Amino acid sequence: MYAEIISIGHEILMGEIVDTNAQYLASRLPSLGYEVRWMHQVGDNMNHLVDILKKGLERSDLILTTGGLGPTADDLTRESIGAAVDEELYIDPEQLEILRGWFLRRGREMPIRNTKQAHRIASASVVPNPVGTAPGWWVEKNGKIVAAMPGPPQELQVMWENETSVRLRGKSTGRVVLSRTLKTFTLSEGEVDEKITPVLGLDNPYVGVYAKFDGIHVRIIATGDSDAAARRLLEPTEARIRELLEETIWGIDDESPEERVGELLKQKGLTLSVMESCSGGLLAEKITDVPGASSFFVGGIVSYATEVKIASGVDPAVIEKYGVISAETALAMAEAVRTKLNTDVGIGVTGVAGPDSMDDKLVGEVHIGIVHPGGTRTISGSYPPRRHLVRNRAAVGALLGLWQELRELQ
Amino acid sequence: MYAEIISIGHEILMGEIVDTNAQYLASRLPSLGYEVRWMHQVGDNMNHLVDILKKGLERSDLILTTGGLGPTADDLTRESIGAAVDEELYIDPEQLEILRGWFLRRGREMPIRNTKQAHRIASASVVPNPVGTAPGWWVEKNGKIVAAMPGPPQELQVMWENETSVRLRGKSTGRVVLSRTLKTFTLSEGEVDEKITPVLGLDNPYVGVYAKFDGIHVRIIATGDSDAAARRLLEPTEARIRELLEETIWGIDDESPEERVGELLKQKGLTLSVMESCSGGLLAEKITDVPGASSFFVGGIVSYATEVKIASGVDPAVIEKYGVISAETALAMAEAVRTKLNTDVGIGVTGVAGPDSMDDKLVGEVHIGIVHPGGTRTISGSYPPRRHLVRNRAAVGALLGLWQELRELQ
Repeated sequence: MYAEIISIGHEILMGEIVDTNAQYLASRLPSLGYEVRWMHQVGDNMNHLVDILKKGLERSDLILTTGGLGPTADDLTRESIGAAVDEELYIDPEQLEILRGWFLRRGREMPIRNTKQAHRIASASVVPNPVGTAPGWWVEKNGKIVAAMPGPPQELQVMWENETSVRLRGKSTGRVVLSRTLKTFTLSEGEVDEKITPVLGLDNPYVGVYAKFDGIHVRIIATGDSDAAARRLLEPTEARIRELLEETIWGIDDESPEERVGELLKQKGLTLSVMESCSGGLLAEKITDVPGASSFFVGGIVSYATEVKIASGVDPAVIEKYGVISAETALAMAEAVRTKLNTDVGIGVTGVAGPDSMDDKLVGEVHIGIVHPGGTRTISGSYPPRRHLVRNRAAVGALLGLWQELRELQ
Repeated sequence: MYAEIISIGHEILMGEIVDTNAQYLASRLPSLGYEVRWMHQVGDNMNHLVDILKKGLERSDLILTTGGLGPTADDLTRESIGAAVDEELYIDPEQLEILRGWFLRRGREMPIRNTKQAHRIASASVVPNPVGTAPGWWVEKNGKIVAAMPGPPQELQVMWENETSVRLRGKSTGRVVLSRTLKTFTLSEGEVDEKITPVLGLDNPYVGVYAKFDGIHVRIIATGDSDAAARRLLEPTEARIRELLEETIWGIDDESPEERVGELLKQKGLTLSVMESCSGGLLAEKITDVPGASSFFVGGIVSYATEVKIASGVDPAVIEKYGVISAETALAMAEAVRTKLNTDVGIGVTGVAGPDSMDDKLVGEVHIGIVHPGGTRTISGSYPPRRHLVRNRAAVGALLGLWQELRELQ
């Protein structure tokens, strides 16, 4: 069955914001049995909205809208859906009470203009919004569904999770598409391709190999008449790929390197410190981005200037002999910060982020040193010479290198 | 005059990528005299593409497309434009030579399938792509323009800057919309509103006040029959607002706090070091994100654990007396890192990023200490209790606080 997504708001057409809502919804529809064929962004213009809604109702089974549910004259989603399905709007007394209560709990009287948010049509049921005033709509008419949700991403996501996706489950008679991404580290794209040859070349499940900044990803896409049927195709293929790629798989789907490293450190009861130069704080920032990092992360040193490395315990003779941009210095940084901050594990990162080369080393050269209770490791690499990319690859490389070491640690 | 943007690719409809190209183009069209009224994402499906192109040619003056210009059977933009304007495709010999040369310079023979990228119709001129193989198209027919550009953002942006935007300049007889954003720090939304009352309430130039994570923004939007006419409205208003808000304006348009701080530090020949806990490396990361930061940024300490603060020179008596989450500790951190790394300026940041409260302090409480050759300053604030937001506000607050101090420094 076919779905269409409409994002509503003048600020999208002015290029003031990126429409991330459409991507959020699009990524979730295939597993519910809907194929997205159209996405649109339109302004707060009733003619345009009614036009695209009518067109959508002709060619699609499901229309999801985001935005235009606020209390102002600009908010035209309710009126436009009413016009598109040819129904009159009226005030829903129950919803009006809910809105009044929302304001009352915040010690305020409901402004008159918010009455608009209690409007509905006969075919619509009102969908509660636990994090804002704008309720959604769920409209079912002539075998078609229109679900209207608010524009602020946080409100949209809560409503989608708690309400809209729940109501949609089982509504589609269309094919269900499930996917699973297995993320690997260490292997090249060609090596992954070679190892998983036995599962490649099929249409369903389809298996694709993609090079990403955090390693090579293997994506499995399975299509079936039901969730169970799609799962029966996906799961054996996933199991087979896991056998073939073994311990090079560090995570799945939305998992991040910092989450996986954090889990292992907590599990093994180890503490971590880092000393970084070219990544400039990004490694510490990623690690501490995960709630609860304080249970294993003690601290970091951003040793941008060479003097800071030396003052933090890196042997100047190592720097003198091998250069600041070297595997030996990266390892000395890891050892120094581990000693200085008294942790079980230390990481050192040095390299050239650019735009200028340094010490005759080209932009993109990165060295990572890891010291842990089971031993030491260095990783050296050379990345495309773009500052943002080099910094990111350096931080992610350090995390994934550590993940591998920790995994093997008894 | 009206514009329409069409982003093409199966991966957008699957929710695998966010369509940032549409926002990039939308933000640039108003200053060229085009009003964007529709944006669409469609798959690699010729029927759908032709359908939306025909509809766009009926109601808009300009259609911009991104994606679908590669060499594979899935890349259908050229064929679809041809069908929409009813013209046959043929091989352009000149373009074929250019493509062959592109591969030759990389020591390879051109694959047969790339011949597709030398196709064109009589109304199209081929637009060079200096960073990839996919050339664009520029089609002018019956007073309408269709400009097709590649999907990879880097290729799109180079082609837009060098070619498409240049060709579009002066084509529109529509009203030109120019905007300017003035970014302030220290004042509240209400205070900004009050100060700029004399320029508020007009339709053209329209002045709006917006609360953002890096302070209050004032946006001026001026519309005129030409670039010059719009400029004549915009510029006096900008000058007037600058008078009214004086030195609270720290930047304009796309400028970032870290760029502005870096400029001032370089200009005054001062060096900087930071000690941060709740921001976890984000402050150092932002500072070093700007190329050339090594000329003033010496280093940072991410003192996540209290022991690291003490080992880095923060007086334990200060922590004992005022608590880790206090203005006094933030200032002591700034002083300690400034002394330890021997810099002119030191910043300390402490706070509770959450999700859990700490030392009886609520999530969102942040303290910033700044020590510089002219004196010291502390800034304390309380932000909405969302981890990502608290960390960001803390880092940006530290940068803007420093910017103000440096500006006033003789």
